[in-house]
Amino acid sequence: MTTFDPTEHQHIRFNPLKDEWVLVSPHRAKRPWTGQVEKVPEDNIPRKDSKNPLCPGSIRSSGKVNPEYEGTYVFRNDFEALLEDGPGPAESDDPLFQAAPAYGTCQVMCFHPWSDVTLPIMEQKDVRAVVDKWAEMNKELGQKYKYVQIFENKGAMMGCSNPHPHCQIWASSFLPNELRVKDRTQKEFYQKYKKPMLIDYLNKESIKMERVVLESEHWVWLVPYWAVWPYETMLLPKRHVLRIEDLQDKEREDLCLIMKKLLSKYDNMFNISFPYSMGWHGAPTGGSLKEDNNHWQLHAIYYPPLLRSATVKKFMVGYEMLAQSQRDLTAEQAADKLRGLSDVHYKLQNK
Amino acid sequence: MTTFDPTEHQHIRFNPLKDEWVLVSPHRAKRPWTGQVEKVPEDNIPRKDSKNPLCPGSIRSSGKVNPEYEGTYVFRNDFEALLEDGPGPAESDDPLFQAAPAYGTCQVMCFHPWSDVTLPIMEQKDVRAVVDKWAEMNKELGQKYKYVQIFENKGAMMGCSNPHPHCQIWASSFLPNELRVKDRTQKEFYQKYKKPMLIDYLNKESIKMERVVLESEHWVWLVPYWAVWPYETMLLPKRHVLRIEDLQDKEREDLCLIMKKLLSKYDNMFNISFPYSMGWHGAPTGGSLKEDNNHWQLHAIYYPPLLRSATVKKFMVGYEMLAQSQRDLTAEQAADKLRGLSDVHYKLQNK
Ligand SMILES: O=P(O)(O)O[C@H]1O[C@H](CO)[C@@H](O)[C@H](O)[C@H]1O
Ligand SMILES: O=P(O)(O)O[C@H]1O[C@H](CO)[C@@H](O)[C@H](O)[C@H]1O
Repeated sequence: MTTFDPTEHQHIRFNPLKDEWVLVSPHRAKRPWTGQVEKVPEDNIPRKDSKNPLCPGSIRSSGKVNPEYEGTYVFRNDFEALLEDGPGPAESDDPLFQAAPAYGTCQVMCFHPWSDVTLPIMEQKDVRAVVDKWAEMNKELGQKYKYVQIFENKGAMMGCSNPHPHCQIWASSFLPNELRVKDRTQKEFYQKYKKPMLIDYLNKESIKMERVVLESEHWVWLVPYWAVWPYETMLLPKRHVLRIEDLQDKEREDLCLIMKKLLSKYDNMFNISFPYSMGWHGAPTGGSLKEDNNHWQLHAIYYPPLLRSATVKKFMVGYEMLAQSQRDLTAEQAADKLRGLSDVHYKLQNK
Repeated sequence: MTTFDPTEHQHIRFNPLKDEWVLVSPHRAKRPWTGQVEKVPEDNIPRKDSKNPLCPGSIRSSGKVNPEYEGTYVFRNDFEALLEDGPGPAESDDPLFQAAPAYGTCQVMCFHPWSDVTLPIMEQKDVRAVVDKWAEMNKELGQKYKYVQIFENKGAMMGCSNPHPHCQIWASSFLPNELRVKDRTQKEFYQKYKKPMLIDYLNKESIKMERVVLESEHWVWLVPYWAVWPYETMLLPKRHVLRIEDLQDKEREDLCLIMKKLLSKYDNMFNISFPYSMGWHGAPTGGSLKEDNNHWQLHAIYYPPLLRSATVKKFMVGYEMLAQSQRDLTAEQAADKLRGLSDVHYKLQNK
């Protein structure tokens, strides 16, 4: 009988953070693709465009005018999914019709005054300004709100309507689903094993070295064992850190370096600005600031949709939506591929 | 103080089947859209095309030749994500690196020999053949496998690589995530309230009538209170039914009628063949056939991505991927809109 080879044989893997499984079907990678192809991401973005509502000095659709900002710039989303107040639904005692009040704020954060740059080609000091602003916003909004979700949708393929380098910050009065689950799983692990799940995971991955793509003094960038998206990755500080604002100066500096490298590798995969959704997950805030959150470990997640080329993405549809996530290439194959790519951005290679 | 109006004021709603919340932000519907637009679904599909691998008589990429089928036609997917056997991973005692064997089969089911028809414009008797085949396949594969997922990806936007009317059937040795959660929540509800959750839900919705779109003798089609996708809907038999093969003759006949109407309404929304992923969820099979599954109620789910027009979809990205699903229009508004549409397909209206 043939012995099991994870790069050849189907299996399911467990994600202990999300308490769910992923189906891995490496033999399926040979499948031809005749389905929808995406547009190649735009590349000739003008540095400044007064019609772009994120540029310095532009007039936004709400009629507000941006200042001539020179670094990062944060403003309230003109179409907030969460408002600071308003009436909430009445309580219901029917378990099938449960609604609850929701408050919050949605902020947009421009990374840089220029539209034609992205994090991997921005200067170290400008990336550092972004990291510091993330930390500041998480701390500030966390005083009032239960959770602050910092996330970046990059690329038209990811529903991002503007090529200007920016992210969003949505703070809410409730703990969103994904975080509620991760809070529970990490707490259960901590109670059982007396150590934070992701610190234990990190230590084990640093010995196995099968899925680690990059390691720096203070950070590890890896493809999680249970990754769902083809090139999904996770970025973790080596030290036990609960929230982004707890990062020390040297950890922030090092984060800028490793982020520039990892994003360069992503862009170098297909020589395009790699689309993704990314975000930071850390301990809850608001009322949770006073509670013990030692089961938490800060981490960033990258979910890039591309699979085979700049124009063929993985569709998370049908079986994935209704039953369970499925991937073709294994986490180890994805890590291998990422390791093999240069960490110098293709746009900077000939300079 | 203003009183709460669900069509005006943000709130969160609970999905008792999936044990998660959705953020509803009706005020956000006014947001302008400048992001990616999709291609309008193709409309001039040739009835027969020997280059289309799903047509009768075509040669598929595996070299196999389709018979000149005249009704439905089922065959093994040439690139199965699940194979019937093969070696499985060894057991691990590390909770962070858990893998398990997975076996199964992936079948493709053509609905009709013609490429230029879809369920809403097919004749009643041909739709009935599809329903009967679904029931037959669920029963047959359910003898061996723990779960049989019948699902249809429709439209290029949904990663569907072929316009020929077809669905897929993936049977697995494991209970996929979505079903594992629904099994747990329905069981807990049944133990607590001594009635199946979805039967109770159905009865309450039939009194409220706010979210019911269509009701026939044996079926109810509604927008669930906790819907996530803009026009997400659920189709339920009125009788307590565990699995699709348990549907009686008159229920099957009636299902064909209501399915044709609901799919016509979908297509009539933007006068295009409405893209979606849909699937059937019922009680687990295999070893579970011998267990008590009275907490289960069979239901079909439709997840269509379109939001504002034939070319603007809802992107489930960023906040949705990392934190929690969010919708703009409320479930009640979606139901209203669907109720207002004709149930005669636009292609058949002038006949
Ligand atoms: O099997 P197909 O139609 O080629 O592929 C499509 O449906 C599958 C099942 O939902 C998904 O895994 C694929 O990502 C999608 O492209
Ligand atoms: O706020 P944006 O960039 O206009 O909108 C985008 O990101 C949001 C947050 O992830 C999503 O809810 C939207 O569906 C998406 O189109």
